[in-house]
Amino acid sequence: MSTDINRSWQLSGFGLSRLKPAEGKVPEPGPHDLLVRNRAVSLNYKDKLIVDGTLIPDLAFPYVPTSDAVGEVVAVGSAVSRFKVGQRVLGQVIADWPDGDAPPVLHKHTLGSSLPGMLSDYVLFGEDAAVSAPPSLSDVEAATLPIAALTAWFALAEATKPIAGQTVLIQGTGGVSLFALQFAAAFGLRAIVTSSSDEKLGRAKQLGAWQVINYRTQPAWDEAALDLTDGLGVNHVLEMVGGDNARRSINALGADGRLSIIGLLGSMELSFPILPFMRNRIVVQGLSIGHRRAFERMNQAIEALALKPVIDKVYGFDQVPRAFEHLEKGPFGKIVIAGS
Amino acid sequence: MSTDINRSWQLSGFGLSRLKPAEGKVPEPGPHDLLVRNRAVSLNYKDKLIVDGTLIPDLAFPYVPTSDAVGEVVAVGSAVSRFKVGQRVLGQVIADWPDGDAPPVLHKHTLGSSLPGMLSDYVLFGEDAAVSAPPSLSDVEAATLPIAALTAWFALAEATKPIAGQTVLIQGTGGVSLFALQFAAAFGLRAIVTSSSDEKLGRAKQLGAWQVINYRTQPAWDEAALDLTDGLGVNHVLEMVGGDNARRSINALGADGRLSIIGLLGSMELSFPILPFMRNRIVVQGLSIGHRRAFERMNQAIEALALKPVIDKVYGFDQVPRAFEHLEKGPFGKIVIAGS
Amino acid sequence: MSTDINRSWQLSGFGLSRLKPAEGKVPEPGPHDLLVRNRAVSLNYKDKLIVDGTLIPDLAFPYVPTSDAVGEVVAVGSAVSRFKVGQRVLGQVIADWPDGDAPPVLHKHTLGSSLPGMLSDYVLFGEDAAVSAPPSLSDVEAATLPIAALTAWFALAEATKPIAGQTVLIQGTGGVSLFALQFAAAFGLRAIVTSSSDEKLGRAKQLGAWQVINYRTQPAWDEAALDLTDGLGVNHVLEMVGGDNARRSINALGADGRLSIIGLLGSMELSFPILPFMRNRIVVQGLSIGHRRAFERMNQAIEALALKPVIDKVYGFDQVPRAFEHLEKGPFGKIVIAGS
Amino acid sequence: MSTDINRSWQLSGFGLSRLKPAEGKVPEPGPHDLLVRNRAVSLNYKDKLIVDGTLIPDLAFPYVPTSDAVGEVVAVGSAVSRFKVGQRVLGQVIADWPDGDAPPVLHKHTLGSSLPGMLSDYVLFGEDAAVSAPPSLSDVEAATLPIAALTAWFALAEATKPIAGQTVLIQGTGGVSLFALQFAAAFGLRAIVTSSSDEKLGRAKQLGAWQVINYRTQPAWDEAALDLTDGLGVNHVLEMVGGDNARRSINALGADGRLSIIGLLGSMELSFPILPFMRNRIVVQGLSIGHRRAFERMNQAIEALALKPVIDKVYGFDQVPRAFEHLEKGPFGKIVIAGS
Repeated sequence: MSTDINRSWQLSGFGLSRLKPAEGKVPEPGPHDLLVRNRAVSLNYKDKLIVDGTLIPDLAFPYVPTSDAVGEVVAVGSAVSRFKVGQRVLGQVIADWPDGDAPPVLHKHTLGSSLPGMLSDYVLFGEDAAVSAPPSLSDVEAATLPIAALTAWFALAEATKPIAGQTVLIQGTGGVSLFALQFAAAFGLRAIVTSSSDEKLGRAKQLGAWQVINYRTQPAWDEAALDLTDGLGVNHVLEMVGGDNARRSINALGADGRLSIIGLLGSMELSFPILPFMRNRIVVQGLSIGHRRAFERMNQAIEALALKPVIDKVYGFDQVPRAFEHLEKGPFGKIVIAGS
Repeated sequence: MSTDINRSWQLSGFGLSRLKPAEGKVPEPGPHDLLVRNRAVSLNYKDKLIVDGTLIPDLAFPYVPTSDAVGEVVAVGSAVSRFKVGQRVLGQVIADWPDGDAPPVLHKHTLGSSLPGMLSDYVLFGEDAAVSAPPSLSDVEAATLPIAALTAWFALAEATKPIAGQTVLIQGTGGVSLFALQFAAAFGLRAIVTSSSDEKLGRAKQLGAWQVINYRTQPAWDEAALDLTDGLGVNHVLEMVGGDNARRSINALGADGRLSIIGLLGSMELSFPILPFMRNRIVVQGLSIGHRRAFERMNQAIEALALKPVIDKVYGFDQVPRAFEHLEKGPFGKIVIAGS
Repeated sequence: MSTDINRSWQLSGFGLSRLKPAEGKVPEPGPHDLLVRNRAVSLNYKDKLIVDGTLIPDLAFPYVPTSDAVGEVVAVGSAVSRFKVGQRVLGQVIADWPDGDAPPVLHKHTLGSSLPGMLSDYVLFGEDAAVSAPPSLSDVEAATLPIAALTAWFALAEATKPIAGQTVLIQGTGGVSLFALQFAAAFGLRAIVTSSSDEKLGRAKQLGAWQVINYRTQPAWDEAALDLTDGLGVNHVLEMVGGDNARRSINALGADGRLSIIGLLGSMELSFPILPFMRNRIVVQGLSIGHRRAFERMNQAIEALALKPVIDKVYGFDQVPRAFEHLEKGPFGKIVIAGS
Repeated sequence: MSTDINRSWQLSGFGLSRLKPAEGKVPEPGPHDLLVRNRAVSLNYKDKLIVDGTLIPDLAFPYVPTSDAVGEVVAVGSAVSRFKVGQRVLGQVIADWPDGDAPPVLHKHTLGSSLPGMLSDYVLFGEDAAVSAPPSLSDVEAATLPIAALTAWFALAEATKPIAGQTVLIQGTGGVSLFALQFAAAFGLRAIVTSSSDEKLGRAKQLGAWQVINYRTQPAWDEAALDLTDGLGVNHVLEMVGGDNARRSINALGADGRLSIIGLLGSMELSFPILPFMRNRIVVQGLSIGHRRAFERMNQAIEALALKPVIDKVYGFDQVPRAFEHLEKGPFGKIVIAGS
């Protein structure tokens, strides 16, 4: 990434073939803005859904995708008081959500959506929409936090209360799922991980999974989860798929169980039977990343726990399309773009 | 109801035509039991679903249906310390749920299900599964509380935090819904009531509804609810129907909205789109009545609020089948059986 | 209040005799500021403690006291998006507390403390530190909300969960106490009010008090409160005094009781015996007003409940010292300064 | 411990010199009781306060002290359904607190207080006041859980929400404190331990303390705690002393900090200044052990975390007075009585 011009990857229309390098001017920070020299960007599955036109059908082009970046503050607006030049910062993706309940109309100010995306040399963050990067993490590692880690953290530590010894079932081994696994293990939760690959399940065990279920060899993974919990059911399921998969999730839950809806890999619909749902007084909650205060608390925890994000592969800034192709294949952990 | 023999209404098989009078012995209280002379019994929609075989397909016959009763303690077991002869008590329907989380395997000890039902002259309550009836209520009024009132109370005052000024949408004008309306009004919530009958909606207004929607003339009642809230959406919906109706419920909710699943009048399935659910961080919770502590708190509130249950009609003990027929037509409030 | 110059009341040193009229320039709004033409200002007891030097011994002079004002937006900064010229707004006193937990170092940005006070014709609010005034309230009424009403609301509706039928004991009949009484009554709580004046207690009953205790004729008001609750103790006490008074507050509480520390009329110390405190698992919480989201929720509730603040007396802008003198005598409700 | 007669240690009056061996009959289980053959008993500091007459001045003699025991079920009452002969159980000390809020009049049914103590060969537990002992623990280890471990667990995992990365300051290295340290470390909390002994602090570090403070060499341990947290203050303090010590605890807390009052080693009074308390919106909570559901959850966590209680010394059943003498000297962890 060079200094005077601002290189970007821009979509001129839907489809990965329309994601192309572009050049523009370095943006001017307003009074409350930070100008940030990007050091690393991570990809999320929703970036693929935006690029291929599934998630935001009325996107305005040209559009710079992605939301997660770490960089160095190189200039600050006249009124900025929270950060200084030289600090390493991460962007708060839902920019107008400092704490508590979300703003009434969400996604009004969201990085990589209503606000510009991160695949540029230089980006702007509002000073109230940035947090310090955890000092113990490298740039590549820190870039993975804004969506994947914060979503997992919010589901396990903010939206509910983690009670050590309880069980949490985590679907898959993508970026959010592996953060969830690492947090769960660090909180003393018993994590059950599902995957179609025994190799990935083996690696999940090394990361602290209590039990694993291969849903290819055990399609009735809900029954397997009930067996693992002596028939009582698990306390919490992180749903990454939706559709009929959620029926099994409900079935795997025990009394006062919780289903956190995080992903939509498989369907835009959710359906399940009412009776077990009512009998066990299940709570199903939709999540959308998290607020800035949670981001700050998470970063403090990452330091305290000495937790290291799982990186599947790092691509150069000139390899963005290949990084997106990798994303589609289902990485183990995160895909990051870093370096020039 | 006479004294030496114990008259009951018993099902010999599924269907209202098989619900017949029977006579038996007055039960003997165990050391921790209360022997209660029944004074009034109220019906719930789930009693109809049990009688016609929908809810518990493997029911053992003969079976005495219904769960809600008020009566007088006429004898106590040797170890009883919480109640005395002469007190007026209500049964706690989920008998082994004193407070906090529900027992791991719910409905193991439930009145009118695993435990005998209430359509008898004499019934037994465990002393830990009974509460004092609110003194300000008549027998007929008190009999309506164990399921309908407690379900509404639990949804509005226990499972969540009622915040005055917020909006709650209540579907229909049956027993649970009218209790919900009365509680909502007493807590300072703005209640929106839906019904297909303008006449019922008029009565709902008299009971404290802030706004009403006739879903026959306004089938897109979710859009109507959004209009009533300046497009922000309601804070809480009490779902009484299920199925596709829940799609509209999700659509009517605003940021951090809550959907409490209480009834299953229309479908045994629940389905809705994931995107608005995640965007607004919706919580959907299944409810099953409530615990004894909540019952006690509710009774205290009923006294403080001088709240009077809405009774549609009272039938005699010899008119039980007619009472069930009325239930099927959709009463405005509660159906009660009282008197000999 | 005139237009071109900005009249104020300024302290040149501690003591009411040093509070004098002054004139200055109308302030210039920064990009995110609202310029507000003041319409009414209300006094709080802490304003007296600031004027006489008790609360902030290192205050910098000249200083414009008071924190609560309502006014009309007459100009907005270039970046303002939340408000428009012509809207009627209230200032959020702890300006950098939008929601959730408070900022780590509190009172960094507080109206009438680190930020200028309100006794001026024109004041500035950051757009993120203002809320719309409830349309149903007059200017005089609206001016009472920012500290007194929000403190009472936060204690009863935000920091805990109001459960109808429970008891709350409110000390005194000042501004915060009467808001607490009105909110408590509107939430279905049973409010017990204490005062040394039977006349004030009579007015408290008219405002919805369930019971009253004259602590002059009944100095052991804690025992009186236990009697009123059949020996069970009250659920919540709002402490306005501190010192030994808090011992009685602890004694008046029942199991799982809560003591909200709101005022410091009598002492800067708090002390009580440990044993009853532990036995009943008491929670004592210190409160400092509340966040902006709570302010917005409260204003919505004020509309829904049609609640009207209790005003003891309104003084003109030229009568500020007399208003402060009145404050010292213990008003029934709020003292407001309005008009030119 | 022999079989036909029931040996006990009984107090005939206050003072350790009046604690003497006695013999009685093996008690008869009522219909809902478990007859338990004791295997190990642990001591708590409150047992000393009871023996010397400080805690319960109106104690009725003869009295068998202590509350914490593990044993084997050797007979069950006719109505018992939750346990079987042969199971290893622990007694729930506050016997009538299954979950949720405590019973209105607490300590009505408490082991070693209103109910008989545990220093007997055979004891009775109500079946609703017993839990299974964690299989991974020895008898000696399991006996330490009912008060010390449950109090620490309740303070850290039930009464509040443990958020990994936050700080908790734990006073001393007695039984409750070391359990708190072990739980805190397992939840990802940063534990700061205080003691007057560098040797004990060294052992605390081995058990997972993040930082330690010797309050003999650093009497202003509150300032030391502020330094360790970059001036922000700690999030949670477990108060074991009371009196003026609590002033330092309040001073050591940051915004929204929490002070859990657990012990009363130094004073029966609590006092602190109001201003910092209100400014930081501190919560002070009195705790009394915990409910049965929490006990069950804790035991599940002990299995999941493979946590081992810290035992200072084990005494034989004939060495009870020596065990009490050791208790007074301030053990590192727990004192247990086991074996005949």
